Amino acid sequence: MEIKVVQEKLAKALNTVSRVATSKITLPILNNVLIRVDNKKVSLTTTNLDMAVVDYLPVSDSKDGVVTVPARLLAEFVSNLPKGENITISSKDTRVTISAGKYSSVINGALADDFPELPEINESQAVTFKMSVEDFKNGLNQVIIASSNDLTRPALTGVYFNTYDGVLAVAATDGYRLAEKKIINKVESEVAAIVPTTSLQEVMRSISDDMEEIEFSFNEDLVRFRLGEVEIISKLIDASFPDYLKLIPKENDIKIVMKRDELMRVTKLAALFAKGVGGSIVCETKGENEFLVKSVANEFGENDSKIETPVNKEGKVTLNSRFLMDALNVMDEDEICFDFAGHLAPVLLTNKKNKDYTHIVMPLNA
Amino acid sequence: MEIKVVQEKLAKALNTVSRVATSKITLPILNNVLIRVDNKKVSLTTTNLDMAVVDYLPVSDSKDGVVTVPARLLAEFVSNLPKGENITISSKDTRVTISAGKYSSVINGALADDFPELPEINESQAVTFKMSVEDFKNGLNQVIIASSNDLTRPALTGVYFNTYDGVLAVAATDGYRLAEKKIINKVESEVAAIVPTTSLQEVMRSISDDMEEIEFSFNEDLVRFRLGEVEIISKLIDASFPDYLKLIPKENDIKIVMKRDELMRVTKLAALFAKGVGGSIVCETKGENEFLVKSVANEFGENDSKIETPVNKEGKVTLNSRFLMDALNVMDEDEICFDFAGHLAPVLLTNKKNKDYTHIVMPLNA
Repeated sequence: MEIKVVQEKLAKALNTVSRVATSKITLPILNNVLIRVDNKKVSLTTTNLDMAVVDYLPVSDSKDGVVTVPARLLAEFVSNLPKGENITISSKDTRVTISAGKYSSVINGALADDFPELPEINESQAVTFKMSVEDFKNGLNQVIIASSNDLTRPALTGVYFNTYDGVLAVAATDGYRLAEKKIINKVESEVAAIVPTTSLQEVMRSISDDMEEIEFSFNEDLVRFRLGEVEIISKLIDASFPDYLKLIPKENDIKIVMKRDELMRVTKLAALFAKGVGGSIVCETKGENEFLVKSVANEFGENDSKIETPVNKEGKVTLNSRFLMDALNVMDEDEICFDFAGHLAPVLLTNKKNKDYTHIVMPLNA
Repeated sequence: MEIKVVQEKLAKALNTVSRVATSKITLPILNNVLIRVDNKKVSLTTTNLDMAVVDYLPVSDSKDGVVTVPARLLAEFVSNLPKGENITISSKDTRVTISAGKYSSVINGALADDFPELPEINESQAVTFKMSVEDFKNGLNQVIIASSNDLTRPALTGVYFNTYDGVLAVAATDGYRLAEKKIINKVESEVAAIVPTTSLQEVMRSISDDMEEIEFSFNEDLVRFRLGEVEIISKLIDASFPDYLKLIPKENDIKIVMKRDELMRVTKLAALFAKGVGGSIVCETKGENEFLVKSVANEFGENDSKIETPVNKEGKVTLNSRFLMDALNVMDEDEICFDFAGHLAPVLLTNKKNKDYTHIVMPLNA
């Protein structure tokens, strides 16, 4: 096996794939990147058994062959070589030599035979979508925050890709809040699949500025994302996602419009005083034009701030300040709608103009 | 007690002092900032018993009095208020009200009587130095890295300020390496005092771009730094610093000059392979113009790189790669001198032109 490639290209590809290589003591080969050269096509592959990343690398010269090498060591080594340097990687059995001008190293690799076989999407049965990388990234960032880390509820540790009414939406919930974004407005195929949040985070990290389009294909139990020369294949979560559309309140009778940065500021101020009470704050509409945010009085003291905005009805709800701040952080318009129906109903947050994004925060019992 | 002050000024002062406030459960008042107004002079003070920070605050209006308030809560609260807002802080017993436009809070403070008394420099016996903030910051950054965290050897957990031959030098060592910088070239007073590294780090953090001069005064057991409106008073370390000038090798017969970034690169590359062997790398001069840096062969593989530079004598030394990288990181010229005398003598690193900075790395037994 031999490849010749310029430092920048190799460093970028290794950086992308090496993150997935893990140090599982029981299966040390997962530390390694598989370098395969097959008829001038070079691929770098890593896997953690739940997902795999493949980067196809344009090289100036190559000899067929295959070997595996510790991924992070190789990535760090190459990233420290000078930019513009031509790098040659060649292998003889499991001895891998990397040379670049005055620099040379031998890394002890391992046979490719032990590298786990990668799952493949069955193209003929796959449902495929394409969209702009930017819309994908923005949309997923708006929902991933609501997904859960709780491994005892696997359905909630992923993002649900689902089609209805001719749109493709992504949704996530941890039981305390829920976020949904419609990411493609007209679709003809149908899908209902939960993609692990950890795999999506890897997809997000693999996005670079020069990428324009993302393609993703679903099979029965797999999803594949294609981003330029990078392919990420992940298992789907085998569970059913809650019927979340039912949870979105249809009729909240108290409707307020506020500047997002102003609500963020008063929430942050109240949150400082709410550390001793699990972050609970009280949001209240009063009179004709007062929206109040208060911390509950406690050992630190008490805080209250008001925002002036037209009020159609008086009411009060207790929320976790962190959840409210998380939502405001990812919303993208200057003005947002804050709709609620008293202290027991969920709060519905939407942008004032574009209604593609919906965020629900459940109230706390106060 | 009452003060009126604009948000930016109060936020900056609170940010400076609140870092020193600690959460000592045995003495909770140390969490607090002491706000004292005395005849239109306002001071904010925090202490952790080893050091104290005082920031004198210019205010537009005030009423005399004194109170203490949880420092971080107040700092975070004020930093989240809008810029340009006029803030009023007033106290009634230990109830402290902060108001700014639409925002208002009550923080539960504590009586100032419980706040520890601060040590004071005896001006008449003090030895005082003044220098540019920039030179101070650069010089201290170059030596602090060599100081130790090992609390069993207190003398090494500080930076030694000492005068000899009419210069003021700062030096630090952890027993494995030593760094010295001459920071003032002509001094008339004399000093020999060890300032805790943690106190110096606080001084460094308190430096802001608008500061030009720093003044520092030593007493028997205290040092006081003055930076604009900020005063930092710290205990000195009561121990004797090693007679470090003796440790600096006078006659190293192997003398190499190299580009600093090139030596940094080959050291980093070798260090990647040296993780399994505690970071040891071998530096070797060979023939008439080869400087080699090698990792010792181990489970990962092996690495060697060369730098072309005139060599006056062949020799070899084993070093800890991290210590070499730390030194190269803080040196400030493009070309550096690497002098050594074989495998048992310390390596002397200096800038090629300006000899104010000296860094020694002890060899490893190989």
